[in-house]
Amino acid sequence: MSSVPLVLRNLIDKFTKFPGVGRRSAERMAHFILNKLSLAEIKSFSEAMIKLKESIGFCSVCHNISEDQICGICKDDRRDKNIICVVEDPKDVIAIEKTGGFMGVYHVLMGSLAPLEGRGPEDLTIRRLISRLDTNNVREIIIATDSDTEGETTALYLTKLLKPKGIKLTRIGMGIPLGSNIEYADSGTITKALQGRKEL
Amino acid sequence: MSSVPLVLRNLIDKFTKFPGVGRRSAERMAHFILNKLSLAEIKSFSEAMIKLKESIGFCSVCHNISEDQICGICKDDRRDKNIICVVEDPKDVIAIEKTGGFMGVYHVLMGSLAPLEGRGPEDLTIRRLISRLDTNNVREIIIATDSDTEGETTALYLTKLLKPKGIKLTRIGMGIPLGSNIEYADSGTITKALQGRKEL
Repeated sequence: MSSVPLVLRNLIDKFTKFPGVGRRSAERMAHFILNKLSLAEIKSFSEAMIKLKESIGFCSVCHNISEDQICGICKDDRRDKNIICVVEDPKDVIAIEKTGGFMGVYHVLMGSLAPLEGRGPEDLTIRRLISRLDTNNVREIIIATDSDTEGETTALYLTKLLKPKGIKLTRIGMGIPLGSNIEYADSGTITKALQGRKEL
Repeated sequence: MSSVPLVLRNLIDKFTKFPGVGRRSAERMAHFILNKLSLAEIKSFSEAMIKLKESIGFCSVCHNISEDQICGICKDDRRDKNIICVVEDPKDVIAIEKTGGFMGVYHVLMGSLAPLEGRGPEDLTIRRLISRLDTNNVREIIIATDSDTEGETTALYLTKLLKPKGIKLTRIGMGIPLGSNIEYADSGTITKALQGRKEL
């Protein structure tokens, strides 16, 4: 690897830390920066990252990313504040907002429970969710955590915690994704799809 | 998309310009920067990019990337200066160097011929290659451009240009890649493999 200058190797290493970026992609990206971008473009890119980090914080109500103290969704009078959709991550808010079909508000947990990795309830924004329920007249909580082990664990924990409060609790539907073949679905998904069958 | 702040959208747009990065990956990367990196880490990442761009130039002999005026390979006395391997890109040098099996030197064209896209011989470092041949006693030129249309066009052009000089010209071998199935190879590859067959 003596043919790769240290400054280049250094940047490649940094890129491998990015999500979904392996060694090969990191090399391509570093070479792209070296060969295709001008110094001005690199500086503008750096500034965009720093500006993002400096200007974006979290909504004091729902913990979604926000440029202001309270995010656009929580501020919006047309949104139904009595339906809270609980998600793991700000990215999930964006994904659900893209559908345009949800008119309630969100609560971003900032992760999921993973006891084996040492992520417990106090690492998430659960306490803040409870205080939202205490001060607002919430009608329904939709638990929209991921359908992986951590997401399911989190959903189970929230169910046990919130059930005694007498608020309607729901979990997002699970089953065969749209446009996909049943034969290619894993058995866990098929089981969920059968359990979640609807009368026609 | 009103739920995505402008500064975040701006960075996502910049990431989509990277090679092999689609909208989804760009979103993941921007969120990674926002949620997982500290401001100090972002600044260190920015500095690594700027330092790379400022400190790396191109070797004045072979046009490989280099921190010095002449790259480590061209400087190395153990390398055979009489065998020049012609490649399209500095990334190709790194790939070949990883094999550890080539002891000649390189010439980096900085691209390939693509007449339809307006990339002609004057956009590559071909003139510099010719002057290397005129001033050195070169024994063999290995044309190791890609095996796609542009790479083959470039190889053909170089062959016509260099053949009259009486230097041994070779093209890297093409065929079925190691560890892959013949049944999955495209017919162009199989044709090349048959043409390039070796007696056992």
